[in-house]
Amino acid sequence: MSEQFSSIGIVGKPGDSRVKSTVTALAKHLAARSIEVRVDPRTHALLESGGCQSCETDELRERCDLLIVVGGDGTLLGAARTLAAGGPPLLGINLGRLGFLVDVSPDNMLETLDRTLAGEYEQESRFLLQARIGETPEQAEPSAAFNDVVLHKWNTGRMVEFETYIDGRFVNAQRSDGLIVSTPSGSTAYALSNGGPLLHPSLNALLVVPICPHTMSNRPIVVSGDSQVEVRICGDDYLHSRVSCDGQTNFPIAAGQHLFIQRHHQSIRLLHPLGHDHYKILRAKLGWGGHPSL
Amino acid sequence: MSEQFSSIGIVGKPGDSRVKSTVTALAKHLAARSIEVRVDPRTHALLESGGCQSCETDELRERCDLLIVVGGDGTLLGAARTLAAGGPPLLGINLGRLGFLVDVSPDNMLETLDRTLAGEYEQESRFLLQARIGETPEQAEPSAAFNDVVLHKWNTGRMVEFETYIDGRFVNAQRSDGLIVSTPSGSTAYALSNGGPLLHPSLNALLVVPICPHTMSNRPIVVSGDSQVEVRICGDDYLHSRVSCDGQTNFPIAAGQHLFIQRHHQSIRLLHPLGHDHYKILRAKLGWGGHPSL
Amino acid sequence: MSEQFSSIGIVGKPGDSRVKSTVTALAKHLAARSIEVRVDPRTHALLESGGCQSCETDELRERCDLLIVVGGDGTLLGAARTLAAGGPPLLGINLGRLGFLVDVSPDNMLETLDRTLAGEYEQESRFLLQARIGETPEQAEPSAAFNDVVLHKWNTGRMVEFETYIDGRFVNAQRSDGLIVSTPSGSTAYALSNGGPLLHPSLNALLVVPICPHTMSNRPIVVSGDSQVEVRICGDDYLHSRVSCDGQTNFPIAAGQHLFIQRHHQSIRLLHPLGHDHYKILRAKLGWGGHPSL
Amino acid sequence: MSEQFSSIGIVGKPGDSRVKSTVTALAKHLAARSIEVRVDPRTHALLESGGCQSCETDELRERCDLLIVVGGDGTLLGAARTLAAGGPPLLGINLGRLGFLVDVSPDNMLETLDRTLAGEYEQESRFLLQARIGETPEQAEPSAAFNDVVLHKWNTGRMVEFETYIDGRFVNAQRSDGLIVSTPSGSTAYALSNGGPLLHPSLNALLVVPICPHTMSNRPIVVSGDSQVEVRICGDDYLHSRVSCDGQTNFPIAAGQHLFIQRHHQSIRLLHPLGHDHYKILRAKLGWGGHPSL
Repeated sequence: MSEQFSSIGIVGKPGDSRVKSTVTALAKHLAARSIEVRVDPRTHALLESGGCQSCETDELRERCDLLIVVGGDGTLLGAARTLAAGGPPLLGINLGRLGFLVDVSPDNMLETLDRTLAGEYEQESRFLLQARIGETPEQAEPSAAFNDVVLHKWNTGRMVEFETYIDGRFVNAQRSDGLIVSTPSGSTAYALSNGGPLLHPSLNALLVVPICPHTMSNRPIVVSGDSQVEVRICGDDYLHSRVSCDGQTNFPIAAGQHLFIQRHHQSIRLLHPLGHDHYKILRAKLGWGGHPSL
Repeated sequence: MSEQFSSIGIVGKPGDSRVKSTVTALAKHLAARSIEVRVDPRTHALLESGGCQSCETDELRERCDLLIVVGGDGTLLGAARTLAAGGPPLLGINLGRLGFLVDVSPDNMLETLDRTLAGEYEQESRFLLQARIGETPEQAEPSAAFNDVVLHKWNTGRMVEFETYIDGRFVNAQRSDGLIVSTPSGSTAYALSNGGPLLHPSLNALLVVPICPHTMSNRPIVVSGDSQVEVRICGDDYLHSRVSCDGQTNFPIAAGQHLFIQRHHQSIRLLHPLGHDHYKILRAKLGWGGHPSL
Repeated sequence: MSEQFSSIGIVGKPGDSRVKSTVTALAKHLAARSIEVRVDPRTHALLESGGCQSCETDELRERCDLLIVVGGDGTLLGAARTLAAGGPPLLGINLGRLGFLVDVSPDNMLETLDRTLAGEYEQESRFLLQARIGETPEQAEPSAAFNDVVLHKWNTGRMVEFETYIDGRFVNAQRSDGLIVSTPSGSTAYALSNGGPLLHPSLNALLVVPICPHTMSNRPIVVSGDSQVEVRICGDDYLHSRVSCDGQTNFPIAAGQHLFIQRHHQSIRLLHPLGHDHYKILRAKLGWGGHPSL
Repeated sequence: MSEQFSSIGIVGKPGDSRVKSTVTALAKHLAARSIEVRVDPRTHALLESGGCQSCETDELRERCDLLIVVGGDGTLLGAARTLAAGGPPLLGINLGRLGFLVDVSPDNMLETLDRTLAGEYEQESRFLLQARIGETPEQAEPSAAFNDVVLHKWNTGRMVEFETYIDGRFVNAQRSDGLIVSTPSGSTAYALSNGGPLLHPSLNALLVVPICPHTMSNRPIVVSGDSQVEVRICGDDYLHSRVSCDGQTNFPIAAGQHLFIQRHHQSIRLLHPLGHDHYKILRAKLGWGGHPSL
């Protein structure tokens, strides 16, 4: 029943030459089915034909009932943060190699799209994080993250020192290059580069991973997804610290401010072709074979 | 209200010379409060005075409404597996150094006990695992584990090869020294020696950790506590494999048999003094200090 | 100058069906060049034609001036331990996929062989270890290892406890699943599964890696190749310990015996085609790409 | 024979209030023995009594035949880089806790000093690194490092991409937070925070450790101390990269410049009390106990 998705938005990866032909094909295919197609302005500028509207972020969010993201995992991360929390579901088409999130190949995207329009898909909910920087959580403007909120050392070759609290309880003080608070989705991203475990996307859990800690006993910690993590930077080290969301946005911290991270009150929805298999994607992406070889 | 605990069992660490005086003091203290005291036979044989009964495992489980474990974490693991699933709550007194599980010091145990009897305590639920070895899960006798179920290579200097399935889905095939499936409680035990993360005890999650995998891309995995993990050993490698629960019991695997692990349908209850702080115990046990030093 | 190699031995991987045709082709090619060919008895039994002699290990070692190993890294490890210390150089032809040690493809082996006979090759020296188990090093019979000497827990689900000494100095006591003492060659083998670093084959260094240590502060250690490592097992844990060389041979330890490991007084020589590149093999085997992808 | 050290320099940790009394005691003790004492200007300003001269870096290096460093490992690192390559030997007095390098306690420093003056000491040679940033190694000004030369990402929440070459051979391309090239001395410093092994200080080896690499197969590499490591940053990532020596000095990289690291042609000498034991210091600093406890 294609009435389910009568208005579809398309978001393309900025600056990727492969976007044009893929989006053109998608738009044409959808237009032929009398579906309204809206495209983000930058991608729209690439298109030659007329049959779709250019549409700003807010409008995409308000007026579409499905968003197709064409690009890589990074493109979907951006769309998820800005468009999708509590908004339309996302379907990801990978321009390059298979992503953890964008798992539809351009080779069979039209077929997959038809099936999706016919209601043949799996829907998965992924939660977001919200990060707030301020003296108290109430004062601060929240920022969304899909994968992770990261406290980084910044502009320094030295470590920063900070204290971590979970649900108001002191966990530890550490000197390190920073701290990652990750969703299960983010466990395959920067957290993995820092020795973190893989969390199944269905888990309601936060992953807290130190970055290059200056002690041998620090380890990744997994806590409830309903926990609140607070980071208090020691001394003047806030001068050498930044907070980033999904590695895509950066925020400074001022004297007296703390970093508060908790689950976002809204989730996003990802659509997958039927038969979607999380472990199959892990095997493909992480090179797990039938027969291990070293 | 001491009526809450009118019959208390005591289980001592076998073969530890410090058990005698501690249990004697406990038994005397409880008897003076007109509480029935039952003691496991081995520990009872150490005691001189009469005021308590020797009592087998089943009876301790049936007739007591509180079990005091005197020893180390290993003593509590054993009691948890055999006595406590769905049975009386456990209070752990550490004979030696502070444990993750036995967190009452002999120095203030009588005071703590009085408070516990007066209802001043925190109760925490921890889930157990059940392991079954058989051709199908239905055929097999379940064994309980508090920390972990471990597939080990056995009697060989080589690795074993096996496949892991979670909720019926193929995860990967690996050659390694084995596999750990751990509760959050077990995340501070053998899983930690193998690079696993720390899981908060309140999480409903299983931790799956490869032991010395012969590939660089394998990582610890965290899945829902409601998942079922299945391990299928390849070829004749079952001849060189054993399964252990909490490192305390060992089971062989026969040709055609698989290992099935899931959450046990019964939990155990741990009692702690008021103000119990999981992170404080982690800091004490793992050496996390206020000021990290390398 | 083919006079350099006038008698060549061939050792095949036992029980591999691909050995027959490869060795037949090699033997025929060499015979046509009037080179004496000797083949290990098991492999010789597979061959149909007559033009080569069956030859026991000692004779291969004494009478050949080049040994061609046909199989995988494991086949070469075995040949290195038994034949090659101070003996003829080895050239490895990989039956299956590229190995760290057997790096000549069957596809171009005859061409590579001709070049080798013409003196166009690179020669590399790799040192072996010798392990001795006894009350003192002098009393004990030495065993050779190419990759590693490993102390394993054996027949137990628990850890073993032991002390490590290097050059007579106490290093530490640990409870773990064992200890690996590895050559640079072995740094890509079992040591790598345990988190060890990669050592360049030219280094005169020993790599000492704990196996699943029950402490967070233990790390791999790299010491001089001229160091002697001694392991003293605590209490009765020798009952649950074995020593293996290259994972291929196993030795028990008796009460009062220690394990002594040091560099073997003889080295082996590996021949490679010109242009041999250690890092290229690492990239191929470990999946390091031009463009990293996770 | 105190004539061996007739002119002694003292370097204090800047801004540490404990320096004053320690240096005053040292200076007085040495003056009483008719030894010329020279003190770095900042420390000299703290002293009240007159019996020693203020002395700039170059003069300390030229005119002293022993340098006493009062502070922590960081103070000694600074002195080693600026004063000691090919210069006088260093003796380190730790103001706070025991260091890896400053291993004389203030409690018995006068006694240790007397013994040192009497020739009762152990001398150890440690090599330095030299880092050069330029289009070719020849063009570039060398900077010294005692522990490590580190390429860091800088001013960015993203990774940088670069290629590593060792002795002119391509090793790999990686996206990561940077790269550490460390001496054996530095293996207990930042390299350890990144999962590197411990290298014995006597080894002639370089340790190359990736920082949070975005691939699962990257590992620390140990190569000969005579090797040259070259890092070529890809694309525009030099804009987001800095090089630091011992975490104490920072250098930018310009377009077209590469980073070249090799062993410094001069070494430094460390003096220790007799009976100095490297493994004892490791045990003390890393918390390795007689009986491991988790």
